[in-house]
Amino acid sequence: MTQDEPLRAAVVGAGYWGPNLARNFRNSPDWDLVAVCDLDADRARRVVGARSTVEVMTSTAELLARDDVDAVAIATPARTHASLALAALDAGKHVLVEKPIADGSARGREMVARAHEVGRVLMVDHTFCYTPVVLKMQELIATGALGDVLFVDSVRINLGLVQPDVDVFWDLAPHDLSILDFILPGGLVPRGVAAQGADPIGAGQPCVGYLTLPLAGGAIAHVHVNWLSPTKIRQMVVGGSRRTMVWDDLNPNQRLTVYDRGVVLDELTNGGKKAAVNVSYRLGDAWAPALPEREALGQMVAELAASIRQRRSPRTDGAAGLRVLGVLEASRRSLDHGGGLVEVEPAHPLLEVRA
Amino acid sequence: MTQDEPLRAAVVGAGYWGPNLARNFRNSPDWDLVAVCDLDADRARRVVGARSTVEVMTSTAELLARDDVDAVAIATPARTHASLALAALDAGKHVLVEKPIADGSARGREMVARAHEVGRVLMVDHTFCYTPVVLKMQELIATGALGDVLFVDSVRINLGLVQPDVDVFWDLAPHDLSILDFILPGGLVPRGVAAQGADPIGAGQPCVGYLTLPLAGGAIAHVHVNWLSPTKIRQMVVGGSRRTMVWDDLNPNQRLTVYDRGVVLDELTNGGKKAAVNVSYRLGDAWAPALPEREALGQMVAELAASIRQRRSPRTDGAAGLRVLGVLEASRRSLDHGGGLVEVEPAHPLLEVRA
Amino acid sequence: MTQDEPLRAAVVGAGYWGPNLARNFRNSPDWDLVAVCDLDADRARRVVGARSTVEVMTSTAELLARDDVDAVAIATPARTHASLALAALDAGKHVLVEKPIADGSARGREMVARAHEVGRVLMVDHTFCYTPVVLKMQELIATGALGDVLFVDSVRINLGLVQPDVDVFWDLAPHDLSILDFILPGGLVPRGVAAQGADPIGAGQPCVGYLTLPLAGGAIAHVHVNWLSPTKIRQMVVGGSRRTMVWDDLNPNQRLTVYDRGVVLDELTNGGKKAAVNVSYRLGDAWAPALPEREALGQMVAELAASIRQRRSPRTDGAAGLRVLGVLEASRRSLDHGGGLVEVEPAHPLLEVRA
Amino acid sequence: MTQDEPLRAAVVGAGYWGPNLARNFRNSPDWDLVAVCDLDADRARRVVGARSTVEVMTSTAELLARDDVDAVAIATPARTHASLALAALDAGKHVLVEKPIADGSARGREMVARAHEVGRVLMVDHTFCYTPVVLKMQELIATGALGDVLFVDSVRINLGLVQPDVDVFWDLAPHDLSILDFILPGGLVPRGVAAQGADPIGAGQPCVGYLTLPLAGGAIAHVHVNWLSPTKIRQMVVGGSRRTMVWDDLNPNQRLTVYDRGVVLDELTNGGKKAAVNVSYRLGDAWAPALPEREALGQMVAELAASIRQRRSPRTDGAAGLRVLGVLEASRRSLDHGGGLVEVEPAHPLLEVRA
Repeated sequence: MTQDEPLRAAVVGAGYWGPNLARNFRNSPDWDLVAVCDLDADRARRVVGARSTVEVMTSTAELLARDDVDAVAIATPARTHASLALAALDAGKHVLVEKPIADGSARGREMVARAHEVGRVLMVDHTFCYTPVVLKMQELIATGALGDVLFVDSVRINLGLVQPDVDVFWDLAPHDLSILDFILPGGLVPRGVAAQGADPIGAGQPCVGYLTLPLAGGAIAHVHVNWLSPTKIRQMVVGGSRRTMVWDDLNPNQRLTVYDRGVVLDELTNGGKKAAVNVSYRLGDAWAPALPEREALGQMVAELAASIRQRRSPRTDGAAGLRVLGVLEASRRSLDHGGGLVEVEPAHPLLEVRA
Repeated sequence: MTQDEPLRAAVVGAGYWGPNLARNFRNSPDWDLVAVCDLDADRARRVVGARSTVEVMTSTAELLARDDVDAVAIATPARTHASLALAALDAGKHVLVEKPIADGSARGREMVARAHEVGRVLMVDHTFCYTPVVLKMQELIATGALGDVLFVDSVRINLGLVQPDVDVFWDLAPHDLSILDFILPGGLVPRGVAAQGADPIGAGQPCVGYLTLPLAGGAIAHVHVNWLSPTKIRQMVVGGSRRTMVWDDLNPNQRLTVYDRGVVLDELTNGGKKAAVNVSYRLGDAWAPALPEREALGQMVAELAASIRQRRSPRTDGAAGLRVLGVLEASRRSLDHGGGLVEVEPAHPLLEVRA
Repeated sequence: MTQDEPLRAAVVGAGYWGPNLARNFRNSPDWDLVAVCDLDADRARRVVGARSTVEVMTSTAELLARDDVDAVAIATPARTHASLALAALDAGKHVLVEKPIADGSARGREMVARAHEVGRVLMVDHTFCYTPVVLKMQELIATGALGDVLFVDSVRINLGLVQPDVDVFWDLAPHDLSILDFILPGGLVPRGVAAQGADPIGAGQPCVGYLTLPLAGGAIAHVHVNWLSPTKIRQMVVGGSRRTMVWDDLNPNQRLTVYDRGVVLDELTNGGKKAAVNVSYRLGDAWAPALPEREALGQMVAELAASIRQRRSPRTDGAAGLRVLGVLEASRRSLDHGGGLVEVEPAHPLLEVRA
Repeated sequence: MTQDEPLRAAVVGAGYWGPNLARNFRNSPDWDLVAVCDLDADRARRVVGARSTVEVMTSTAELLARDDVDAVAIATPARTHASLALAALDAGKHVLVEKPIADGSARGREMVARAHEVGRVLMVDHTFCYTPVVLKMQELIATGALGDVLFVDSVRINLGLVQPDVDVFWDLAPHDLSILDFILPGGLVPRGVAAQGADPIGAGQPCVGYLTLPLAGGAIAHVHVNWLSPTKIRQMVVGGSRRTMVWDDLNPNQRLTVYDRGVVLDELTNGGKKAAVNVSYRLGDAWAPALPEREALGQMVAELAASIRQRRSPRTDGAAGLRVLGVLEASRRSLDHGGGLVEVEPAHPLLEVRA
């Protein structure tokens, strides 16, 4: 493999998400899609399509034994992530894995450690972090345009089938949490998690859920995930001390609006003592940044290739996956204890968290 | 006073809301606005305007002593509601009072009891319950068009000044809670309240707040109130077993959309035992009911007149005000105890709750 | 009358629009509303309301004979404008007249000439020119932010009753034309007018209409007015060489959006001869200017007072009214001649057109 | 070829649109994409992609000589349509051709006649007629839900490069005209065409254009096409005697809204003579039909296959292409004659127009 030649990828899992990964590897100048692997050969064959020389495989062992595959993308159920990823890393492959990184933090940490040991890239498919709108939001926070983040409110009411072994938190919240991890200056390191859920249809698990995440400096993040409404709402409001931004993903003509308005706080003192606080608002224009039309997955596979070639961590690395997983696990504990605030276990004491 | 002649009203308080009440009493065929009363005569005079014979008064005692006033509308700070209302009732006046009904349940109950004793109407200005959109929402639930209510999610991000003695819950949530009380079949009788708040600007009290209200039958209501964003969002989603409705108050052309879609639950059994649940969605059209253009306050003063004339409880009576107040008080207790779920005190054991 | 005292107004006509004028004169610190005059005393009385000392009159002759009235606002059918306005001017009153200024240019010119002779203000109620959004549009063009105006496209599909003696052009187009007159740098001086109309319901006059107005420099303006759709659309697109702006009046949260995008024209030459033209687009952000919440009529009566006090022409003066009327008359001629382009008579050779 | 086996297609032209056709033939169960042909082999190769056995060809003669190709899709400039299509028909291939069908009616008629002679399908790619929203609009008119069509107003402000040999009418209006042809009960048979255009940037040809099309029964259609605005608007209003529908293609969540409102016409008679007309409005709910998410081109290639297999005319046949072309040619004549109304030449006296 030289810098000029495409890297060689294989996709494992031809279910809901695998075909999207396959299509993007195929369309990318950075990649050559060698094979699609699924226990169900017909399903894999449909992903590959007619008049194609991409190979169809049914054995991951055979796939990992090949030496013409540089990276493996794992799009299988979460409980299989760890064993597949560890085997792939041991076989010297770089690994892209769907969210959540694993079904438990211990296994997730093992994956991160193994990737470190064998010197291979381990990337988590936090797809939204590669959308133009989230990149712009991250930039607006990082450059100080928004000021300090005061609150984040995320709503994800989605058409999504209730799944037997995954509740609404594990299914949908990884999207919101991975976005928070990406846009918040220090990553997602909340001071705790409180979770409230409901199952009004008797599905046997929460179908409506709310996460409250107190952040450093008195800020707060809140996530609403909901399976029960066929009406789609995907909205995130990020309130800053200088500006407020609203992401409405269902308004493709103006996904992101930045309000050049802020809260102005005047402390009124009385004999040197704070007597009262006067809060007013600075009103200004709204602004909709031009966003390029780019498919997120295309950017994601490009970042995977770049991180492999530059021998560096990818943007959404294993540590990011662990931070998201830690919040999910804490949410489950909060639910089990009546919704009170619980602590989040640090992602990994031995791993450097993003500075 | 006969049925044909207008009733005679006086407004107490010429601050933020009083002028709106005065304007609506003036424009109503049911009412004759006799006087506006405020400690600040100039402020009251500005409400009355030029070339007007509506009287300006500065003493509530003098106002209540008049026998040409049938009803008094109280638009003063919450802490003054009880004493003013009790005095007015004792003087034989009907009373309309701003929300919240009082600054504490004990005083609120005293008001309700006194009105009962003296046989006068006590109405709370839950303005939103008189908007065409909320009336339609109530109707859609009451007629069964929505099916069972599964979840309610209300967002009220408002331009509003941080106030010295009222936090964001007491300022904004009465709107959402009074709407819930009006549209939910049995009124607002949650199984508890959990409240989370944040004060990221150091205002000395919560400026961002979340209420979670478990309802009967596994349903859940959730309220997000927020003072810190100059960006306005007023949205309520009510998910039902048959349909889902979305109220977007900032879309005047289509405030209410009803999605003719529902969750379909199939229980898969295995040897008579529930083995799994399969949830699917029935997709259908969306529908935006035609809503009349009517000012809510105009409807409200008409309902006040009708309830006086018909010697009946008004639509938003004192008991409704007590139910809202009870949730506000429980929220404060939840906040003081770390956000866990706390019980709501029954509105009044002696009062009949709306059937 | 001193600068400190309010001017004294009377409204003639208590039909559809008169009450709005009356309300704004009443609420304005610049004005004292003395009387409302209508042949139908009851109708006038309803405008005045209860507990008011504003006078109700039924004779315009008596009204004009009063010496405690400085200005008269005429909100009667167009065919009566000229005689009423001339009588008022002759009586020394300043005059505000509804659009269109008159039912014919000759009478309109007489009104303008008379106002000039007697030294009184003659103002036309081009209401939209006093809305914050149109003021902002005018500013964006005047300051060069938009570049040269390349095209204007205005759509006004309105709920409006078909009227016996006014077609859709005379009813609705004055709004669009008066806005064009206000925002275009040299006022509304088109190189001609082509009108197309349709009457698909057999109403006896056009109910759907299109105006095409070629402007100087190859630019073009186009107006679509329509009575037959109960669906309301009010949209104006102004394309400039530097930016394009879209006014959507039914989106109160973002009435005006300015697209920081423009057409880039590269002339490709071949041996010094223009061989081809390459047009590309410069893409940039969109921008929604903050607009104050102000009622247009309030601004309008303030401008009327200011022009009287400063002895100057008002913003929407008689000449503006004549330019709009001239286009309406030309439209009628174009319709009568199969829709071809016809010339517009100059507003008045003797009057200075706005520089 | 049997009913069970896919038909074999080749795409000619690998420019802007060809890749979309190729992708849809590839993804369709009805089709096997055999080859992509372009004078520029690299361009064709990029369409075919890596690890594919779809053939790349550079000679249409060689392509047409193959006997393993059933249908040829022509996505080349309009001036080449006729010669390519005639050669393909002569070689026994079915033909799909981009819009407009040809660069002149004479050549278009020759194509239609030849297809008839050789018994092959000639289909025009009027893509929008295969979108779920246009299909629904056609259905609502055909079933009488809309009542009689009173007016159609179509706006297409598009980001599109000014082209050297095609003006804005020929580039964009075919979309609107083909939709009109599809949804209007008798196809697009206007009583004439009036065209107004402008070239405010000196591009050498109209960049902004308006078409007015009087229809039978006093109805009217109007089309606004515009290249000069980078702001995209795609909106069509169809007013009917019973309902009005608005298609806003930039609102993917609610592309089509049907207003259950209509014009009510009361004729007031005086001694048996029509004295006046009173028009009022019946107000009702709005309704947004659920629309499936389907790519139009996928439906289009399916219809091509079905028409070939069923030996019938396709939905958008050559005659539809000729009707659209006839209006385009009449528009050019109207422009050349100052914008007056001109007649449209009948599509073909010898061809049956859609009943």
